[in-house]
Amino acid sequence: MNSTLAEIAKLVHGIVHGDPGVRITGVNGIMEARPGDLVMVRDRKYAARLGESRAAAVLATEPPAGDAIPAILVPDPDHAFALVLQHIEEAQRCHPTGIHETAVVSESARLGDRVALGAHVCVGAESEIGDGVVLYPGVVVGARVRIGADTIIYPNVTLREDTEIGRRCLIHANTAIGSDGFGFVPREGRWAKIPQVGRVVIEDDVEIGSNTAVDRAKCGETRIGRGTKIDNCVQIGHNARIGEHCVLAGMVGIAGSAIIGNHVRLAAGAGVAGHLTIGDGTTIGARGGVVRSVPPGSVLSGFPAIDHETERRAMVARERLPAMLRRVRQLERRLEALEKGTHEQTENNS
Amino acid sequence: MNSTLAEIAKLVHGIVHGDPGVRITGVNGIMEARPGDLVMVRDRKYAARLGESRAAAVLATEPPAGDAIPAILVPDPDHAFALVLQHIEEAQRCHPTGIHETAVVSESARLGDRVALGAHVCVGAESEIGDGVVLYPGVVVGARVRIGADTIIYPNVTLREDTEIGRRCLIHANTAIGSDGFGFVPREGRWAKIPQVGRVVIEDDVEIGSNTAVDRAKCGETRIGRGTKIDNCVQIGHNARIGEHCVLAGMVGIAGSAIIGNHVRLAAGAGVAGHLTIGDGTTIGARGGVVRSVPPGSVLSGFPAIDHETERRAMVARERLPAMLRRVRQLERRLEALEKGTHEQTENNS
Amino acid sequence: MNSTLAEIAKLVHGIVHGDPGVRITGVNGIMEARPGDLVMVRDRKYAARLGESRAAAVLATEPPAGDAIPAILVPDPDHAFALVLQHIEEAQRCHPTGIHETAVVSESARLGDRVALGAHVCVGAESEIGDGVVLYPGVVVGARVRIGADTIIYPNVTLREDTEIGRRCLIHANTAIGSDGFGFVPREGRWAKIPQVGRVVIEDDVEIGSNTAVDRAKCGETRIGRGTKIDNCVQIGHNARIGEHCVLAGMVGIAGSAIIGNHVRLAAGAGVAGHLTIGDGTTIGARGGVVRSVPPGSVLSGFPAIDHETERRAMVARERLPAMLRRVRQLERRLEALEKGTHEQTENNS
Repeated sequence: MNSTLAEIAKLVHGIVHGDPGVRITGVNGIMEARPGDLVMVRDRKYAARLGESRAAAVLATEPPAGDAIPAILVPDPDHAFALVLQHIEEAQRCHPTGIHETAVVSESARLGDRVALGAHVCVGAESEIGDGVVLYPGVVVGARVRIGADTIIYPNVTLREDTEIGRRCLIHANTAIGSDGFGFVPREGRWAKIPQVGRVVIEDDVEIGSNTAVDRAKCGETRIGRGTKIDNCVQIGHNARIGEHCVLAGMVGIAGSAIIGNHVRLAAGAGVAGHLTIGDGTTIGARGGVVRSVPPGSVLSGFPAIDHETERRAMVARERLPAMLRRVRQLERRLEALEKGTHEQTENNS
Repeated sequence: MNSTLAEIAKLVHGIVHGDPGVRITGVNGIMEARPGDLVMVRDRKYAARLGESRAAAVLATEPPAGDAIPAILVPDPDHAFALVLQHIEEAQRCHPTGIHETAVVSESARLGDRVALGAHVCVGAESEIGDGVVLYPGVVVGARVRIGADTIIYPNVTLREDTEIGRRCLIHANTAIGSDGFGFVPREGRWAKIPQVGRVVIEDDVEIGSNTAVDRAKCGETRIGRGTKIDNCVQIGHNARIGEHCVLAGMVGIAGSAIIGNHVRLAAGAGVAGHLTIGDGTTIGARGGVVRSVPPGSVLSGFPAIDHETERRAMVARERLPAMLRRVRQLERRLEALEKGTHEQTENNS
Repeated sequence: MNSTLAEIAKLVHGIVHGDPGVRITGVNGIMEARPGDLVMVRDRKYAARLGESRAAAVLATEPPAGDAIPAILVPDPDHAFALVLQHIEEAQRCHPTGIHETAVVSESARLGDRVALGAHVCVGAESEIGDGVVLYPGVVVGARVRIGADTIIYPNVTLREDTEIGRRCLIHANTAIGSDGFGFVPREGRWAKIPQVGRVVIEDDVEIGSNTAVDRAKCGETRIGRGTKIDNCVQIGHNARIGEHCVLAGMVGIAGSAIIGNHVRLAAGAGVAGHLTIGDGTTIGARGGVVRSVPPGSVLSGFPAIDHETERRAMVARERLPAMLRRVRQLERRLEALEKGTHEQTENNS
């Protein structure tokens, strides 16, 4: 990046306060900023720290105290900053273009317009790759897979046969979609495999992180609703159904056949047991482990997950457990002494 | 799938009850079924829900109430359903066949009969690939690896040098077998690497999920016993030994040198600390964290894992902790009042 | 391996005690040893078990009791054993050499001396690969990536654009470095992506396990300090900064913008919430979940992580919770009886 403050102000529809010719060569956090960086302050709390920053300029709602550094004034600095990030992203972008000569594409696969296949990509029989799809090097697409327009799939991702991916999805490096679900029945002291003949359907505008696994259904579908965002190292079991516009943070685990509503948020390391239903708009705290179905709008944490406020109090109480144990022991001794005394006294009185 | 009910009845050795000409185009769960789907009911509880299903026919032990839909009667519907799933799986199957021209095979590697190597597969020096083995696109096999007959390895799996895989194993996409164990010793304020020169041995009929890591031993072996099934996102440390016919659910972690017996079940997110022994037939509940060796036949949960029933009661009690703390405080106050009163009274009496 | 005891003694600068011509064909643990194996004993506790071992010889500080087996005497058996392991590792090593004809290297990439690129490796535009770097088959290197001299990257690893890797690093199979951080803002009932235009910087001598994900920064850097060792299935969020010479065991999760000091140890399954600071030299126990910033030298465990000793006592007390609840109930009953009795008595006395 190498723009003047005036150029960036134009991009974000903001007003320059100070020298419009200041050169901006990057963006950063307030404390991490280097000379040339543009930073963003959301409110006065952050603005107070501008004095310590080496930033060249700031995106803010009002001029910084003492006009410390030049500013671009905007009503919504978060949004303006996102626009700048997007501008940088487009400049940095280095998606593959065209069909690399080492890509292996089945004769029966159909490729849309402007499809880009990186080196060593593999596309299976009867697959349909939508317009503008980008498959980075090393992506393996099985048979009968459908990928919607403008989806981007990063290196070394695997999409097993019959998987369906929506439009404008992002799937990050080394993730596996459509592997066999984990289903076995005991038979004569061994585990007999239940064949997994269903598939995975991922709707539009879904983003999935790296090293995540979404298993195909035993039969029917494992489904991720549109707009849902999934982080790294997440495991989603067979026949799970995740609703629309959910957020699943890193290391979340969803067991088989769990049904998650819309707008559900699962914080890092949270888990949901199999065959449960999580109501719309529910929030599960970090490491919360849900073992019972949950009504819409719940806020839960802990394992087993309970009402978040109750859990918070139980967590605080837990630290005091050893002390409480001592107090109970003491109470017992004192009570015993008292009982003995009262008894004697009663006898004396008789 | 497109069969008549009569054809499926023949496949599962069942008896048609109702129209044998009904066309079956898929299989599904009772509630998820679409027209044309065959479903399965295990018992009367499930049978009661058939009325709400759009299924075309059912696998069951007895005719559905009111002959709601046509049925195939079998003594073991689970087993019959698995046979149908297997039939579908075989039809769906799209394993690579032959040696793809982009596969890179060392001259010193030996390939058995009917070996299939997908696009961009790589087989290292002196490796031996058994009869009927299928390596999907992007699989990387290091030097001196041995893979037993009829094993299937899905895309982008890595098998590091000297790994040994048994017969009829399944290894799912993006899993890493034989990476260096995690071993370091502190030396002058740094971590010095302990070279990891052992290997991984995976016995016959093992299945391993996606994005799982099984590390090679420091010296000697990390070993997974025959018939053991391992899910996604599992971590198995160096020199661990997992017994036969175990089940390790998603996100389980086994630390280095742990020894797990036969027929052990580890539920999702369970963990075992290093250098422990878990007796045969033990079950560890979801997220159970084992920090001490465990005798055969144990049923444990919690962290640290304790007897499952005790843990269950402790979990219930945990929610009542804040209330209990209040009760203890109240007891103390009442007791103090009483002690004071008794004391006064005793003085009065003297 | 096939050496005489005398040859190994020379390698480790030790003194042979017993037959110097004994043939050593491998190394192993005391109990796992097979004939021909060399083992190591650190102290007398281990030495006592030599009688049960099938080992051919032992590395030790003093001759074994009754000269049970030949020995090499050294002051530091751990160090000597590591030297032997290193010797074996060098012999076993089968790194790719040269540039494989199927590797795809951008014309604008610069390769140092003695660079080895395995089959189907891909190197993006303007990347710089240092002297002696080894990229195993299937590694995908994006644009503008820099890799320092003598770093080894195992199969199917992805390095996204702009990533910087130091010298002498090891990155294990199927790990993803530089994927987009997980950043979204709610906008009209949907999640709008915050573009992630920062990068990942990994300093010298870092080792990273398999199926680990280190996300690129939103802006600025995600940074792993030199000498730090990271295990398998670890998740490191955007803008996190890990210090020097840390150890992160398997399944650790570091949320976005967390700052971890130097010489910090995180045991298996530990987690750190976002935007926290962990002081130098801190140790977090297995599954510890840090939700507040932590001063240097802390030793914490539990979730939320508290002082390790307090947590240990709380864990023990937890098992006694149901019993404690019963005791409190009993205390209440006894106290009530006593209060009633005292009251009556007081009335009698009046």
